[in-house]
Amino acid sequence: MQARTMPFEGAQFPVICAPLVARTKAALVEETRIVAAKKPGLLEWRVDFFDDIANTAAVVDTLAAIREACGGIPVLFTRRSSNEGGEPIAIDEPRVLVMYRAVCESKLAALVDYEMSNAAADVSQVRDMSAMHGVKLVLSFHDFMKTPGAPFIASRFALAQQLGADVAKVAVMPRNMGDVLVLLGATLQANESLPIPVVSMAMGGFGALTRVCGWTFGSAMTFAVGQSSSAPGQMPIEEIEAGVAMLRRALGR
Amino acid sequence: MQARTMPFEGAQFPVICAPLVARTKAALVEETRIVAAKKPGLLEWRVDFFDDIANTAAVVDTLAAIREACGGIPVLFTRRSSNEGGEPIAIDEPRVLVMYRAVCESKLAALVDYEMSNAAADVSQVRDMSAMHGVKLVLSFHDFMKTPGAPFIASRFALAQQLGADVAKVAVMPRNMGDVLVLLGATLQANESLPIPVVSMAMGGFGALTRVCGWTFGSAMTFAVGQSSSAPGQMPIEEIEAGVAMLRRALGR
Repeated sequence: MQARTMPFEGAQFPVICAPLVARTKAALVEETRIVAAKKPGLLEWRVDFFDDIANTAAVVDTLAAIREACGGIPVLFTRRSSNEGGEPIAIDEPRVLVMYRAVCESKLAALVDYEMSNAAADVSQVRDMSAMHGVKLVLSFHDFMKTPGAPFIASRFALAQQLGADVAKVAVMPRNMGDVLVLLGATLQANESLPIPVVSMAMGGFGALTRVCGWTFGSAMTFAVGQSSSAPGQMPIEEIEAGVAMLRRALGR
Repeated sequence: MQARTMPFEGAQFPVICAPLVARTKAALVEETRIVAAKKPGLLEWRVDFFDDIANTAAVVDTLAAIREACGGIPVLFTRRSSNEGGEPIAIDEPRVLVMYRAVCESKLAALVDYEMSNAAADVSQVRDMSAMHGVKLVLSFHDFMKTPGAPFIASRFALAQQLGADVAKVAVMPRNMGDVLVLLGATLQANESLPIPVVSMAMGGFGALTRVCGWTFGSAMTFAVGQSSSAPGQMPIEEIEAGVAMLRRALGR
């Protein structure tokens, strides 16, 4: 297996990414300091939690403050749509695109995440604006209700690549351990068939395993809790690090 | 998933079983003391490593010494056949059966392991002699070269049950991470379809994961190194315990 590394300088395999979910600039700066001290490989700012999301200047200003507080750890900028598990927000999609454009222009984020289920024209815009400013694009798919069949999961990884993603991400909700095997198998296959890094996780209790071992099946990134979780089943950074290190020793890689 | 617990008093789920592989009585007593201090749930005496295996009285005497040194930890008595990864031994199968009979009569072992690939009449004898003395029987299958397909693995679990096993054990050698998923999937299915506990592991580096997480797919036991390993890919007891505990916290069970 030739697993691909996340597309930013200094990326480890796997990248441990910690979410930032505070609601105000001051709280985000504080959260960033606390989480950055645990030295994750990436910070994901979940801007859908941000109270002032309707104010694009405030978003960019806050992102700059996060960057100042983060000790050089790259940032993934994400507005998670409420259709795919994010917080409800006060702005419509055209204004979301204005925000993404300002963030890309600022070059403060190394990567942005956008759901592949958004309108094709919107996905295309986000692809163009990120590419123009050298920002890498994660195209993502989330199912918080179930685990689709392996062919559908494969189609989501493939669609991300077809839409021009630098990284393809799929998160599903398993209802049993068989679903966990479906997600891991689809990840293995996507990693072997696609030219871009893939990221996957099964959420919730059943899926906890995938957050520690998904990388052995090719997933280039795992989300772990610095201060607060952003999705069910995320484990503390320290536990993920210990688990990955243990498997690394056992696998001899 | 309703996973079945190993059939001995005080068995946890999963049981962490540590092998004893020293060649002499004195060395086995010493190994037992060292390994028992790490408090595995079960000790497996791999008698095929024992220099004096041809002397049944010495075998029973040594088993008694192991029991005295083990601080009450139950013992699984195993002659692993050289056909399935064991050490070459100086006695033929009829004398192996004499040894198993003496061990069962001594009631010093809580369980014995015998390969289901042995002659049907021999398997039947071991089943009868163990049942007669209240010793539980693990019928096992090992493939050190490859991972057979899921239907074949399923047939080995089912055969163990048909032959009267109290526990069905399958160990395979994966050549890639896809093989690991095959083994875990077959384990999950066997655990759901059979009335006895199942035990499985994928060996070597690729399979390391299964030694930590196999229980989440229904495997009732995992082998871990106390002092010396008995098969490729076994990890130290401390690491397995830490990994199992981490997953238990994450899974909330």
